[in-house]
Amino acid sequence: MDFEEKTLKRDILFEGQIMTVAKDQVALPDGKTSSRELVFHRGAVAVLAITPDNKIIIVKQYRKAIEDISYEIPAGKLEEGEAGQEVAAALRELEEETSYTGQLELLYEFYTAIGFCNEKIKLYLAKNLQPVENPRSQDDDEFLELLELSYQECVDMVQSGQIKDAKTIVALQYLGLQGNKW
Amino acid sequence: MDFEEKTLKRDILFEGQIMTVAKDQVALPDGKTSSRELVFHRGAVAVLAITPDNKIIIVKQYRKAIEDISYEIPAGKLEEGEAGQEVAAALRELEEETSYTGQLELLYEFYTAIGFCNEKIKLYLAKNLQPVENPRSQDDDEFLELLELSYQECVDMVQSGQIKDAKTIVALQYLGLQGNKW
Repeated sequence: MDFEEKTLKRDILFEGQIMTVAKDQVALPDGKTSSRELVFHRGAVAVLAITPDNKIIIVKQYRKAIEDISYEIPAGKLEEGEAGQEVAAALRELEEETSYTGQLELLYEFYTAIGFCNEKIKLYLAKNLQPVENPRSQDDDEFLELLELSYQECVDMVQSGQIKDAKTIVALQYLGLQGNKW
Repeated sequence: MDFEEKTLKRDILFEGQIMTVAKDQVALPDGKTSSRELVFHRGAVAVLAITPDNKIIIVKQYRKAIEDISYEIPAGKLEEGEAGQEVAAALRELEEETSYTGQLELLYEFYTAIGFCNEKIKLYLAKNLQPVENPRSQDDDEFLELLELSYQECVDMVQSGQIKDAKTIVALQYLGLQGNKW
């Protein structure tokens, strides 16, 4: 069965700093037409960073999209031209947000909101963390507070609804599946 | 520490069928200003449906945002005015996409792309599946193929990159964390 939706026409509705919004007219597999509202995004990286005493680094920050505080693993968008350089991007975000560097291992890559958006996150595990001397500072418009929490504290925060971010839940579940081997 | 970003001005850039796109001017905690590109979405439901012989129902479909085939658990957007009626929405999507109904248990709720979007997914477990007589048919513009796969087959598809959808990975890891108790 051929599922492809061929693009008949694309209208670009908004070209911003972090996203492009488009509306496509598509030909469906049965020959009918429909429209698709789409958000294009450069993609992002996220880092599950484990401290030497087995704590998980969690960033507390305000998220305007939900107008609420969120607790998440360190993460950041790819910059322009940075496709394919996700490891460097992940090390940068880790350093900027936590002042640590570490050894990275790719755990997963996934689309966050595949129904309308092509944002893909590469999720890394960072171990053997070392403090960076004179770390790059975080972005001017980011206000963060760092927490170092046990796995159980994080699981409790998922349960209570304080952790409500998909990539952070994926990362915590990954740890849970490793048992005590991390 | 007060992290709130106060909205100084909101420009609505696009009001579509499934999303509203806005650009906010915000006052940062230090008094400086910045802008935020935001996507507002009604939210969605997803269903981890387990058949009587312990298979996971996976939907194969084309996703225009990534111009590729995707393998995902059944899911769908909330309709207008359906906030707060997520169980009914999840049963509808399950019936439309799989012709089954079942008993639902809420597993997680999470924001999919919290950096710029307020889409929240409620993820349910559906057990005791029963075929629906004369099920509601799927949306006109959805072309789906259903698979019933073992947990290990799904894990292999995550490994190979065929499953690359965040909500589906959350669902599979949930099952992994239950051991053989599902």
